[in-house]
Amino acid sequence: MRANYHEELGHVVDSLQEMATLVETAIKEASAALLAPDLQRAEAVVTNDAQLDAMHEDLEFRCLSLLALQAPVAGELRTIVSAIRVVFELARMGDLAAHVAKIARLRYPTSALPDTLRPNFERMSEVCIEMTRLANHSLKERDAEAARQMAEIDHEMDGLRRDHFGVLLGDSWSGSVEQAIDVALLGRYYERFADHAVAVARRVIYIITGKTPEGEEWPNA
Amino acid sequence: MRANYHEELGHVVDSLQEMATLVETAIKEASAALLAPDLQRAEAVVTNDAQLDAMHEDLEFRCLSLLALQAPVAGELRTIVSAIRVVFELARMGDLAAHVAKIARLRYPTSALPDTLRPNFERMSEVCIEMTRLANHSLKERDAEAARQMAEIDHEMDGLRRDHFGVLLGDSWSGSVEQAIDVALLGRYYERFADHAVAVARRVIYIITGKTPEGEEWPNA
Repeated sequence: MRANYHEELGHVVDSLQEMATLVETAIKEASAALLAPDLQRAEAVVTNDAQLDAMHEDLEFRCLSLLALQAPVAGELRTIVSAIRVVFELARMGDLAAHVAKIARLRYPTSALPDTLRPNFERMSEVCIEMTRLANHSLKERDAEAARQMAEIDHEMDGLRRDHFGVLLGDSWSGSVEQAIDVALLGRYYERFADHAVAVARRVIYIITGKTPEGEEWPNA
Repeated sequence: MRANYHEELGHVVDSLQEMATLVETAIKEASAALLAPDLQRAEAVVTNDAQLDAMHEDLEFRCLSLLALQAPVAGELRTIVSAIRVVFELARMGDLAAHVAKIARLRYPTSALPDTLRPNFERMSEVCIEMTRLANHSLKERDAEAARQMAEIDHEMDGLRRDHFGVLLGDSWSGSVEQAIDVALLGRYYERFADHAVAVARRVIYIITGKTPEGEEWPNA
């Protein structure tokens, strides 16, 4: 019974990695669709999001069945709780990548991004891809250090968000109200994506070390 | 053992109602703070959100312990899964109310809303308060019909969002870029609040009827 339990928990962690890989692809492709702009890639991200939602439902149910059928002890209980949260966070990250792709699709063949803000969004997308890659790596290699790096990277994200608000609200902004709203909403999606990535890191550290990281840089997202 | 199980499940549902009441207060107060504008009320919403986050952690853990300790059968398992989701959705609704309050606080003593859009936001806030009230009622009275009404009300929300985008992007818009961004983000927060309320309704119907409502109006939020 206990051996099966650990085997099934191992399968759950494998599936979490699979989900993290799909989320990494989603934000990579959504960002490419936004920056190109590329209608086909945008459509693909929106379509593929259903697969992440299905994995969310399936994995959540498997985690809960594991709880119900195996009567885990306290430490195991906390681990599965964390896994359930990671599943949720990853699904939400997939939704946000789809939101980015939907704005790219809505404005196509025009770009939703004004030229002045392209470098800002290129960097935001790189940061998000890097955060997803680190989350994936930390899950795979049980590397709490990689997860810890994410809180640092998230600071850069906050700075990037401030930078594009500075451009939007500055005297030299000559874009339309529609462009300003697109940029504000896109920025919000990337920022939320990063918040969820930090929440994943927080849970991964818990799964690995048995301790929840504390402090300012680990908001209870 | 089984009697205790049902008793504890009853306590969990009581706590869900308590959370729903706090969320109703949060969106009511955040909207009042936005519309007045009122700094003190905005501050109170932001401060009180910590209580909802604490309830989220506590209730989630109680639900999972119930699963782990009582080895529930299939139907009970699904009920607790739904309860866990309701807890999450309610906590997220509280966060969104706090986001509304933060924009009110940021712009105080100026109003974040241009006069032309006040009626639109007054109605959005009424719809959100009504949805929270219905969710609470359906939990308390085990009334699936009340939960079903929410999907209908949510259609009005979508219309209100389209209306304010129409104003922002119309020729007669004379506000600043900053105001337009505030309105777009506020609209997004209210829209997400309503999405989460629909997700709560979907789960409440499941808890009561044992069936998940299907169809276009029940997005898998």
